[in-house]
Parts: sequence; structure tokens; C-alpha cells
Amino acid sequence: MGYKAYFVDMDGVIWVGSKIIEEAVRAVNILHEREKIVIFLTNNSTRSRTSYVKALSDAGIKWASERHVVSSSYATALYLKKLYGGGKAYVVGESGLMEELISQGFEIAEPEDCWDKVDFVVVGMDRKFDYEKLWNAMTAVRNGAVYIATNMDPTFPSERGLAPGAGAIVAAISTGAGKSPDIVVGKPSRIMFDIAVEIAGTSNALVIGDRLDTDIVGAKSAGLDSLLVLTGVTKPDDLKKSDVKPNYVLNSLIDILNII
Amino acid sequence: MGYKAYFVDMDGVIWVGSKIIEEAVRAVNILHEREKIVIFLTNNSTRSRTSYVKALSDAGIKWASERHVVSSSYATALYLKKLYGGGKAYVVGESGLMEELISQGFEIAEPEDCWDKVDFVVVGMDRKFDYEKLWNAMTAVRNGAVYIATNMDPTFPSERGLAPGAGAIVAAISTGAGKSPDIVVGKPSRIMFDIAVEIAGTSNALVIGDRLDTDIVGAKSAGLDSLLVLTGVTKPDDLKKSDVKPNYVLNSLIDILNII
Repeated sequence: MGYKAYFVDMDGVIWVGSKIIEEAVRAVNILHEREKIVIFLTNNSTRSRTSYVKALSDAGIKWASERHVVSSSYATALYLKKLYGGGKAYVVGESGLMEELISQGFEIAEPEDCWDKVDFVVVGMDRKFDYEKLWNAMTAVRNGAVYIATNMDPTFPSERGLAPGAGAIVAAISTGAGKSPDIVVGKPSRIMFDIAVEIAGTSNALVIGDRLDTDIVGAKSAGLDSLLVLTGVTKPDDLKKSDVKPNYVLNSLIDILNII
Repeated sequence: MGYKAYFVDMDGVIWVGSKIIEEAVRAVNILHEREKIVIFLTNNSTRSRTSYVKALSDAGIKWASERHVVSSSYATALYLKKLYGGGKAYVVGESGLMEELISQGFEIAEPEDCWDKVDFVVVGMDRKFDYEKLWNAMTAVRNGAVYIATNMDPTFPSERGLAPGAGAIVAAISTGAGKSPDIVVGKPSRIMFDIAVEIAGTSNALVIGDRLDTDIVGAKSAGLDSLLVLTGVTKPDDLKKSDVKPNYVLNSLIDILNII
């Protein structure tokens, strides 16, 4: 293989829900010891990078710092800053998304601002999503705000089974606003991968994930090689039925040590 | 013209928001005096027929009773009863929808029932829509419940401008559930018109509405003639641009008296 960098999804690869996949933790730690660059990429927009560093540390990945994490909330804030400099954002999302936007210098709009003027409507997963937020967001988009989705995942696995993801919330707002998002940041969009390449300082990188539709499709669109692990969403049967083919498939991430 | 029955939309035809269109009220009252059958058809699912009878009376249409009103909530309850007899329904919607379902003998499910077994998920406009309801509904649909939308209107006009309609709520649930509704009751579906024909006892009827995409398209799909009034959503320019052509177009419903 001989890649310099590894871009590793977390949910379904490092852990599933609250259950840590110990072999994957071991594999990632060994990659790090062998001086490979490891960057964690997640579509989850609810948590800040700080919060992920703690979760990784708790899982046994002690060396990870904020610069090793690219969440869709961080990627969204960074990308908007690069494109627009700054501005006022109405956020449908949780504290992690707000924190990342604030830390890039954005102002968070109040609901009533949506009837006047906000620059951006930024939508991620939001367990406090309700009719008022839907109305605020669609109004601001109809009034001309740039409309950004952190990601389009329709669902995500939770302890209680599949839960509604950012994509379900985006669908409601898009229907009300009469348009799809102007920008989608999360995988399979290449924005997340481009940021990871920039941080890693190399595009000689392998994308590791558990989902064909986000991780593997996204890797291809970013021109990167990809590896599917079968510890998460995708099952061997799904792989057989799909036209999307990763470069490598492993049952467990620990097997990567035999081939790097 | 010589139609025996007139199927009249309310919002945009009889009133716009809280503003009553006096000429339309006069026209409808004269149709009734001339012994035409007038039935009011609305996609709005939030109110019961009782509540519409009161609103029509307040607007000056004193003779209207429940049998002159077909709301999407009533049509939904009636149609489900005809198709399935009865059962337990999880409702994302307001009191009018629940009342109509209960009055047709359906049992209303609790949120926790969605993780076990409900027969139907019925979705209408719901100003108390939130993430939990989204999660409950998508779970029940994934667990096999028949999925019914009262209507798919993406927005509706309100005093505060366009508000999210049932269609926006349906979009979120469909995305989370991974499927579109099994049944859509409201216009342009012909279900509403078929019920009106049954009540009127004749298909020699003219559909009167203010929307090309629901009233006029729906009339055509039900094999009925249609009349567009320009007092609501559709403007002369929209009509020019559209491929949907009603049989008649009037600026005001009062002009109908010159041609019947």
C-alpha cells in the first residue's frame, strides 16, 4: 500500500454507538506509531473537535489532538470562512456546530433575524429540531440566505435503532424553501476530504470507512483510494449488490497491518 | 355551463388568511339558492369539518353543514376506513386530524407504540412537529406501518408569510423512513374528488380553485372540469407559463353567475 496518510471514519469503524471496536483502536495506534498521518473524518455535526479528541482518548487513542479531527461541523465553518470571510448564520444544529462557527468568527443569528436578513442558514443534526426552526430556516432561505447542509445522511445508528439524521431535517427545510442546499459539506462531498488532504499535507492517502454511499463514493470523487471495513453499516451482501467498489475490503481494520 | 355540483376550494377562493372574499361568498350563496350542490374541498388537515362549518358560517355561508365539507383530514379517515376497516394510527398532525380519525373508529397510538406495532402513520400539518415525532413516525414506517400523507403542500400562506406545510413534514419522515408515502389523500390526488362526487351524487361537477398544481391538476386526474380564480396563489403570469390549463379562468368568483 505505502500510503502516507489514512483518513479514518469513526462511527462504524472505531466504534458502533457506544461500543468501541478494540481491534480498530489497536490498528490506528500502530499506524500512528509507524509514523503514518491519521486523520479522523466524521459527518456527525453535533460535536466539536474538542469533544471528539476526548472520545478518541477515552477509546484508547491518546495521541489524537484537534488537528487530527475533521468533523462536518468544523469543515462547514472552515469552508464558509474560506468562501465568504464571515457573516451571520442561523443554525439548525447542536452546540458542536455553533461552537465551530463561532470559533471561525461567525455570528449566530436569533430566530427573528430570519425574517430580516441572515447571510447563511446552516443545517445539521438537531435533536431539538421543531416546526419553529423549520419555519425560521425556510424563511431565511427564501429571503436569500446561502443554504448549507453539514451532511445529508438520512439516518444514523443509535442505541434505540436508526435515528433521523441531518438529511431528514434538510429535506423538510428544502421542501419548505423550495430549493436544495447550495452547499453540502459532509461526505460524499469532497470538501471534507480536501480539508483532510490540506491538513495532512499529502494526497497520498487512503480513505477508510464503513459506508459505500458516503465514505467510498466520497473518496472516489476526491480522487483518493478507499478501504471498506465491514464492522459498520455495509454488509457483504450490500457490497455485492452495489456498483460502488472500494479498492480494498477488510472484515476488521486490524488486517490492514498485513498489507501496509 | 349547466353543472349540477360545484367543488369549491376555500383558502384563496373564499378567504385569504383571515380576509374574507365577499364576492365569492355572494357567488357561493347564489349557487346554493339556485339549487346547485356546493361542496367545499380543502387540503388543510388541521381542522375538523365542524370547525370549517363554523368558519363558513362566520364568513356568511350560513347553510353549510358538515356534509358540505371535505377536508383532507376527513377524507383521510374515510378512505382509510374504507380500505382497512380500522386500526391503530400514529398521528403527526393537529386535533382536527385526530378527531376525524377517532370519529371513524380509529385508535390513536402513543409514541412508544411506534417501536412495537402501529397499523398506520398518518401525517398532516403539525405546528408542534419536532424531532421526537419525526423519529417515532419514521420508526413505525420502517416497522411496516402503512404510511399516509393528508397532503403534500410544501407551504401554505399565513399572516407571517409562507409557512411550512404538511409536505415539508412528510419530506423529513420520508427521508428518515427511506420511502415515500403509500397513500397521498389531498389534492391533486383524486381521492378527495371521488369523495365529493359520492357525497354530491353526481360527477357533473365543476372544480373551483386557486392553485394549478393541486385544484386544477387534481380535477383533471378525477375527470372533472375546472375553473381557476385569480384571487389566491396563481397569478395571470403563472397561468401563462404553465402547461396546466383549466377549462375556465375568472378574476372573481362572482363572474360565474354570468356563465352558469
